[in-house]
Amino acid sequence: MITMINGEKTERTVLPEQLKEYIGDQVQIHGSIYKIRKMRGFAFVLLRTARSVVQCVYSEEKAEFSLEELQEESCVCLTAEVAAEERSRTGYELQLIRVQVLSSPEEASPIVIHNKLVDTSLENLLNYRPATLRNEKERAIFKVQEGITLGIRKFLRENRFTEIHTPKIVYSGAEGGANIFRINYFGKEAYLAQSPQFYKQMMVGVFERVFEIGPVFRAEKHDTSRHLNEYTSVDLEMGYIESFEELMQTETAMLQEVMRCLKEECLPELELLSVTLPEIREIPAVRFLEAKEMVAKEYHREIKDYEDFEPEEEKLLCELIYKQTGSEFVFVTHYPTKKRPFYAMESKGSPEETESFDLLFRGLEITTGGQRIHTYQEQLEKMKRLGMRTELFESYLMMHKYGMPPHGGLGLGLERFTARLLGYDNVRRATLFPRDTSRLEP
Amino acid sequence: MITMINGEKTERTVLPEQLKEYIGDQVQIHGSIYKIRKMRGFAFVLLRTARSVVQCVYSEEKAEFSLEELQEESCVCLTAEVAAEERSRTGYELQLIRVQVLSSPEEASPIVIHNKLVDTSLENLLNYRPATLRNEKERAIFKVQEGITLGIRKFLRENRFTEIHTPKIVYSGAEGGANIFRINYFGKEAYLAQSPQFYKQMMVGVFERVFEIGPVFRAEKHDTSRHLNEYTSVDLEMGYIESFEELMQTETAMLQEVMRCLKEECLPELELLSVTLPEIREIPAVRFLEAKEMVAKEYHREIKDYEDFEPEEEKLLCELIYKQTGSEFVFVTHYPTKKRPFYAMESKGSPEETESFDLLFRGLEITTGGQRIHTYQEQLEKMKRLGMRTELFESYLMMHKYGMPPHGGLGLGLERFTARLLGYDNVRRATLFPRDTSRLEP
Repeated sequence: MITMINGEKTERTVLPEQLKEYIGDQVQIHGSIYKIRKMRGFAFVLLRTARSVVQCVYSEEKAEFSLEELQEESCVCLTAEVAAEERSRTGYELQLIRVQVLSSPEEASPIVIHNKLVDTSLENLLNYRPATLRNEKERAIFKVQEGITLGIRKFLRENRFTEIHTPKIVYSGAEGGANIFRINYFGKEAYLAQSPQFYKQMMVGVFERVFEIGPVFRAEKHDTSRHLNEYTSVDLEMGYIESFEELMQTETAMLQEVMRCLKEECLPELELLSVTLPEIREIPAVRFLEAKEMVAKEYHREIKDYEDFEPEEEKLLCELIYKQTGSEFVFVTHYPTKKRPFYAMESKGSPEETESFDLLFRGLEITTGGQRIHTYQEQLEKMKRLGMRTELFESYLMMHKYGMPPHGGLGLGLERFTARLLGYDNVRRATLFPRDTSRLEP
Repeated sequence: MITMINGEKTERTVLPEQLKEYIGDQVQIHGSIYKIRKMRGFAFVLLRTARSVVQCVYSEEKAEFSLEELQEESCVCLTAEVAAEERSRTGYELQLIRVQVLSSPEEASPIVIHNKLVDTSLENLLNYRPATLRNEKERAIFKVQEGITLGIRKFLRENRFTEIHTPKIVYSGAEGGANIFRINYFGKEAYLAQSPQFYKQMMVGVFERVFEIGPVFRAEKHDTSRHLNEYTSVDLEMGYIESFEELMQTETAMLQEVMRCLKEECLPELELLSVTLPEIREIPAVRFLEAKEMVAKEYHREIKDYEDFEPEEEKLLCELIYKQTGSEFVFVTHYPTKKRPFYAMESKGSPEETESFDLLFRGLEITTGGQRIHTYQEQLEKMKRLGMRTELFESYLMMHKYGMPPHGGLGLGLERFTARLLGYDNVRRATLFPRDTSRLEP
C-alpha cells in the first residue's frame, strides 16, 4: 500500500509567540515543565518552550487534574486559558485546565537548572551539558550565537560570497606545525584541518568570493580560558582586492550587519543576558610595532618580545584604544613576517612585515587575516627560503601556477567572538560541547 | 598613527549582472580571461567573472593594447564599451579598449578547462580540481549545491529550527561500528563523528528543533560511485512529534522549498547544466517489506535478503514508483530493527520493525531518518539487549534520564542529493574535494 506524503504541517498546539493574541481563549501548548513553585492554595508552573518560559498558574478550582501529575522536566501538552495578568512580564499567564504528560524524566538532574543562574562549577556546567543547557540563560547564549551567524550569512550573501564545504581530513601538505591532529587514513597518515585556508584560496580562483562556517582542529596543549582544540571558524576569502585594507573594511561592515541582525533577531535573549551590544561606527587600525610602543609608553612597560603580543599587552591595548577612541574593537596591522604563515604577503619595501591584521575585541584576538601571495614564483621562492618541502604542496601550488587574482581573507573564531560579546571570560561558556586537552565528553 | 576603518565598500568595477544597464557606456570590469578565440581580423575574448562568462571582442581599431597582452587565466581589469549585440546570448558584448593585467599564470593547465565540457577522466577532473572547477559547468554544480542549502536554511528557519555546531571529535561512546576513524587525542583514543546524532538529540531537549549542516566521517572501505569517506550532512532533529510521519512531512515540505528556491536563485546554472527540476507535489511512502515484494513481483526477482535492500532493488523500486505515481522520490518505511541503530524506536506491536524511513531519489538513498527512543528505561533496556556497554554512554543517556520529549530526525547527504538532482552517477562530481579510500588530495 502506497500512502502519499504531501508536506503538510501539523501544528496541534499554539506557538508561544502567539499567546497574547489568545487572551480570554482556551489553548493547547506544549513544552517541558521548567519549575513548579507551590504557593498557598495554588502553584506557579513555568513551562519551558522552544524559546521562552511561559508562566502558568495551577489552581484546584480551575484544574481538572492533580498537581502531583506534573513533574519538573516532564514534557507535556497543556490545555489552558490565557488570562491577562499585569504582574506577569508578558502581560498574561496561563490558567491550567488539563494536562497530557508526553514523557517523564527518570530522575532529577543533580544540578538545579531552573534558577536564574546555574549555581555550579564550570566543570559541572560542562559535564552536565544535556541538562544545564536547558537553563534559560545558558541556552540563550547559543541563540545569540546563531544570531551572529545569521548576520554573517546575510552580509556575505548580499556581498556575493559563495558558501563552500571543504574537507576536514587533509593531506600531508597542510599548514603544519606541531598543533595538528593525526589520523590513520587507510594506512596513510592524514591530518585534521587547522583551517580551510588552502581550499578557500583555491575557490577564490573559481567563485572570486567564498566563505565557510565549519569546524577547525588545533592540537594545542594550552589549556587556557581562550583555547579550544576544536572550534567553529567563520572563514572568508576574496579575490580582486587592491590591498588588505579591503579585508578590514569587509569585516567591519560584516560586524555592523551582525549587530543590526542581533537587534532584530535576538532581543529577548540579549535582554535576558543583560547584554548591551557594542556600537560599531568605525574600527581603529594601528600598526603592530606602534601598538607595542603605545602600550609600553602608556603603561610604563618594557617591550620584551618585538615579534608577538603577550596576552596582557592585548588587554592593555584594547583598554587604551577604548580610552582614546571609544571603540571596543581594534585592528592591529603589519604583523612580523616571522610570525605569519608562509602564504602571507610581505609589505612592499619592508619584507620583515606582512600585509596582515588581527582584530582584537575586548582584550582578545578574535580574527586573523591578511593578503596572500598570489603568484607562483613568489610563493615558491618564499617556501624554499623557509626550508619547506615544496613537493608536498603540489596541489596547493596548482592554483598559483594556473593563475590567481590578488586575494586575501580572514578567519573569525565564532565561540571566542560570542564569549566576548556576552562578557564571558572563558570561551567554553560559548561552546556547546567544548573540546580541550582534558575534555572529550559529552 | 591610528587610521579609521568604517566598513565602506569599494566597488571599482561594474558587476557583470548590471552590464545590460550600461549599453552604450564605457565600463570597467574584472575577471579572468577564460578563452581567447582568434578570428580573421578580430578575436573573441571570454571573461570569466564570479558567476558568468562575458563575451568580449578585441579589435585593433578599438583596442589601445595588443592582443598579445592577454593570456588565458590572466586576471585582468578591463575597460570596455558595452555594445548591443543580438547574436550574443546576453544581448550585448564588450568591445575592449584597455586592459590592466593584475596577474598572469605561470603556465597553462594541462587539462583544457574552457570548453563546454572538461574532456578528461574523472581521475584528472579531481586531481586538477583547482583548475577544473574553473570550468563554467563544473563550478555551476556547486552554485546549485549552495542553492540547495539556501532553500534548506530558509525552510528550517521559517519552521523554528535552531542552527547548532556540534563537535566532530567524539568520545568512545559514539555510534560505533567498524566504519569509524580513530584519532590520538592527547593520549586518549577518540573518534571522528559519523553523524551529529547524539548531540542533535541532546539539543532537542534544549531548543525543541535543531539542525546542523556539517562534515561527517565514515571510514568505509567501499570504493563505489556513491560512497565518500567524508561528506556534508544536513541533519535535523525535532521534538514533540506524534509519529515519524511528521518527519517525512517535514522533509517533503523542505524539498518543496528547495525546488522553489533553486528556481529563484540558480536559474542560470540550471540552464547551463540543462537540468529540469523534479516536481514535488507529494512523495509516496511504502513499507520496506511491501517494497521488496513489489519489486520482486514486478521484475520477477527472488528476495534473497529480507533485512536490507540491494542497490539494484533501490533502483528498480524507484523505477516502479515512478511508473505508478510519477514521483522520482519515494519514502521506504519500517526498516527492520536489526538494520537500524540502537536508538531507533520500534513499532508498537511489531518490535522487529522500526518507526523509521529512508528517502530514495532516482535510485539512490539520500536520507535516513526516524523516531528515536526517548525514555531512559526503554533505551537502557534495548542497549543491554544488544549487549552494549551502557557505561560508555553515560553522557548520551543523561538526556533520557533527565527527560526528553518524543522526537526524531533525519540526515540528508548533501553531495548525493546534488549529484542525483543534476544527473551525475558519481557522487564525486558533486563534491568539491572528495575523500575516498585512495584520494586525500587536493
